[in-house]
Amino acid sequence: MPRIGRRSLLATTGLSLAAFGTGFASAAEPAAPAKPPAPAPKDVTRTLAKYLVGASYDQLPANVRKEGVRTLLNWVGVAVGGSHHQTVDIASSALAPFSGPQQASLLGRSERFDVMNAAFLNGVSSHIFDYDDTHLKTVIHPAGPVASAILALAEMTPVNGKDFLNALVLGVETECRIGNAVYPNHYDVGWHITGTAGVFGAAAAAGKLLGLNEQQMVWALGLAASQPVGLRESFGSMNKSFNPGRAAANGIFAAVLASKNYTSSDGMIEAKRGWANTISTKQDYSEILDGLGQRYEAALNTYKPFACGIVLHPIIDATIQLRNENKLTADQIERIEMKVHPLVLELTGKKTPREGLEGKFSVYHATAVALVEGAGGEQQFSDRAVRDPVIVALRDKVVPTVDPAIRPEQVDLTIVRKDGKTFHKFIEHAIGSLEKPMSDKDLEKKFSDLADGILSAAQTRRVMELCWKVETLPNAGDIAKAAVATAT
Amino acid sequence: MPRIGRRSLLATTGLSLAAFGTGFASAAEPAAPAKPPAPAPKDVTRTLAKYLVGASYDQLPANVRKEGVRTLLNWVGVAVGGSHHQTVDIASSALAPFSGPQQASLLGRSERFDVMNAAFLNGVSSHIFDYDDTHLKTVIHPAGPVASAILALAEMTPVNGKDFLNALVLGVETECRIGNAVYPNHYDVGWHITGTAGVFGAAAAAGKLLGLNEQQMVWALGLAASQPVGLRESFGSMNKSFNPGRAAANGIFAAVLASKNYTSSDGMIEAKRGWANTISTKQDYSEILDGLGQRYEAALNTYKPFACGIVLHPIIDATIQLRNENKLTADQIERIEMKVHPLVLELTGKKTPREGLEGKFSVYHATAVALVEGAGGEQQFSDRAVRDPVIVALRDKVVPTVDPAIRPEQVDLTIVRKDGKTFHKFIEHAIGSLEKPMSDKDLEKKFSDLADGILSAAQTRRVMELCWKVETLPNAGDIAKAAVATAT
Repeated sequence: MPRIGRRSLLATTGLSLAAFGTGFASAAEPAAPAKPPAPAPKDVTRTLAKYLVGASYDQLPANVRKEGVRTLLNWVGVAVGGSHHQTVDIASSALAPFSGPQQASLLGRSERFDVMNAAFLNGVSSHIFDYDDTHLKTVIHPAGPVASAILALAEMTPVNGKDFLNALVLGVETECRIGNAVYPNHYDVGWHITGTAGVFGAAAAAGKLLGLNEQQMVWALGLAASQPVGLRESFGSMNKSFNPGRAAANGIFAAVLASKNYTSSDGMIEAKRGWANTISTKQDYSEILDGLGQRYEAALNTYKPFACGIVLHPIIDATIQLRNENKLTADQIERIEMKVHPLVLELTGKKTPREGLEGKFSVYHATAVALVEGAGGEQQFSDRAVRDPVIVALRDKVVPTVDPAIRPEQVDLTIVRKDGKTFHKFIEHAIGSLEKPMSDKDLEKKFSDLADGILSAAQTRRVMELCWKVETLPNAGDIAKAAVATAT
Repeated sequence: MPRIGRRSLLATTGLSLAAFGTGFASAAEPAAPAKPPAPAPKDVTRTLAKYLVGASYDQLPANVRKEGVRTLLNWVGVAVGGSHHQTVDIASSALAPFSGPQQASLLGRSERFDVMNAAFLNGVSSHIFDYDDTHLKTVIHPAGPVASAILALAEMTPVNGKDFLNALVLGVETECRIGNAVYPNHYDVGWHITGTAGVFGAAAAAGKLLGLNEQQMVWALGLAASQPVGLRESFGSMNKSFNPGRAAANGIFAAVLASKNYTSSDGMIEAKRGWANTISTKQDYSEILDGLGQRYEAALNTYKPFACGIVLHPIIDATIQLRNENKLTADQIERIEMKVHPLVLELTGKKTPREGLEGKFSVYHATAVALVEGAGGEQQFSDRAVRDPVIVALRDKVVPTVDPAIRPEQVDLTIVRKDGKTFHKFIEHAIGSLEKPMSDKDLEKKFSDLADGILSAAQTRRVMELCWKVETLPNAGDIAKAAVATAT
């Protein structure tokens, strides 16, 4: 694995996602300066804890339930997809000698670990391809810390699907709201916000499953605040996927201790020397408190349709649409022209990628493979794909031109056929954006591609069915049991 | 347990220790403003890792070896002493269902846990009374994260005492040097530096025992950097002792993963979005790199002789000295007058403590019990002690007067006997300070008092002997096995 490539990719992902999340202007501008400190509202931690303890599945709006289910399905898919990466092999073998009872599964694999180590390993697995879900306002990948924590817990102590989904939504809500309160300053300075805010999400969700009372939830959030995970400098190494995994385990650790009345401070989020003041120069507590139970950050989750930096997504989307609408094949193509935002060439200008990972930094490869295969999944960024002679030949015909009028979420793309006919597509928002979300069918396709070679087609179908109908399951932990590698 | 009291005590401890560590002036002054950023030297993390991997016991100066042994003995004593506190009971019962193989002991108790959970629990236990060792320049309590990690590891995989002591010293060196690099800004903003710097110490020491090579040590430090623990807001709750414990476990976690080549960035300490820049407004990398293997922060460790805020130490010291020199008894005393620094009354002005913990905030109780019992250990701050009629009567005769000319590490104390005779003592540096360290005999007395009621006198003697001769032990893990609760 070329280290430099991987580093650049992930740095890229962070940068471009941040640009998408905060609007076009911010892509080229520094972060907003820290506001002068306003007095913190009282009882931020307690108010949040009280809400979490009282919130039930019945109170969730239908769209939030639905997005929660999609979050779950997407997460299981990426966790299965990453499960045989070297990163998981290493972590699993390193931790096996220390693991407790075999309480929980590793998705896509056959080992079992205690709940905390299983949560860690599934969290790692789900983030390896940087292909998991994204809360665009904060670039938090919400499911990694939260779903990893509660699916492992649900295997140890059965929980019905409604309560499980409620815990998932509340965990996502918690981490995204806390992330909003400190973003972008907290992220800009160097924290990997998925791991620093994520631990709150994991603690909140685990705390729901453990039935914490209000005071215990306050303490769980306090112990979570004491265990932030991850720095952006580690992007490009296995340490990046470490972060959501460790956040999941830390959140369980916090909730389990709190469940036995291990105490913390009552104001760990908002106190003078608490989390937000210590870890960020921005603290906007209204993001945590306003509209609890009324507006849901969990409804704003998005899923990547393509396994590469988001800056390439409009281009791949346009190419696939034109290909499918016009049944275009590689041998017909004279040229693929496109007007792109400057970030595209800055971040993905690699002309001759030689390994799969390098393909993620090549607008030339990404466009060519999208036209040839009609997809942009992990398999389209494999060594096989970047060495395919048809794709290699086609990528020389990709002609990007920087146009400052194009926003990063846009592309203006024209395919010129050898017979002179042209096909044009302007993308305002790519598939996978908040404005144009992936359909359920898209999510299934992504899941199937990720599980291919790990689970059988029938097993893949079965796991997806369980995810879609999670709200009816007597025990949500069955999803994990259904997603392990079988003898076949 | 009165919560407010506990909170104030620990806040007190931090404040007064900081004052002691940085000199008199800083007690009343704000922290130094952040320096303008200087370019970081290259390869801070790698240089440190290279040093750690190459450093052997044979290279340690005799005084450093000796201080390492004293650090070990003091730590075992406080870990045994705290082992039956409610905090440990709760944590042990909460974690038992998740624990792996019974690889390591809980000092002073009978349960066994996997290495990481045992390290956590022993780390918690050793910090409960806030009576552990202190690196005064940073207020880091060095042994908690480091000794907890490696003693548990040594039970799983035997290690000779020389290598064990070397790992202990190197771990302490690592955390204190990294702490120096960011102190005081990092501490002032709200981080509990024992947990944030301590995780590096634990990873370094565990990495030594695991035989990491240079690159693996770089990664272990990187994974440690990703897992800082602890905020000062939690002082006063069980969350405070959580921090050194979790730092110990996180350090092992980092080292174990790195030992199997789980990667991180190569520059996690010094990179732009690495640890020091993200977590502190001050970064002085010369504190990490200068004189490695030549000057030792580990030689600057100190041990508390009295189980209360350090601001009371000169007073207790003076009282005990006069008592012993003149065979003073409570019934002889007319008055105990003292000129004290303003912090004394600000922090410990409680006149009528009703519970043991409140006694730690009462200069009146601390002085009275010191005269009556000739000690200031944990037992002198028990409910029994603060309710003792002789001590209660005597504390009304304690007359402190604030004198701005007195420094916080000083006291000018006069005991007036009923027969009119007076006894005077001026303390320039109290026992336990760097200038007037506790003797080996003092450390043994402290250990015995802490172990009283937990280990038999014979067992206490045996454990202390093992600590003193650790350098000759074939397996340092035997110290842990010797310090567990027996059936008697």
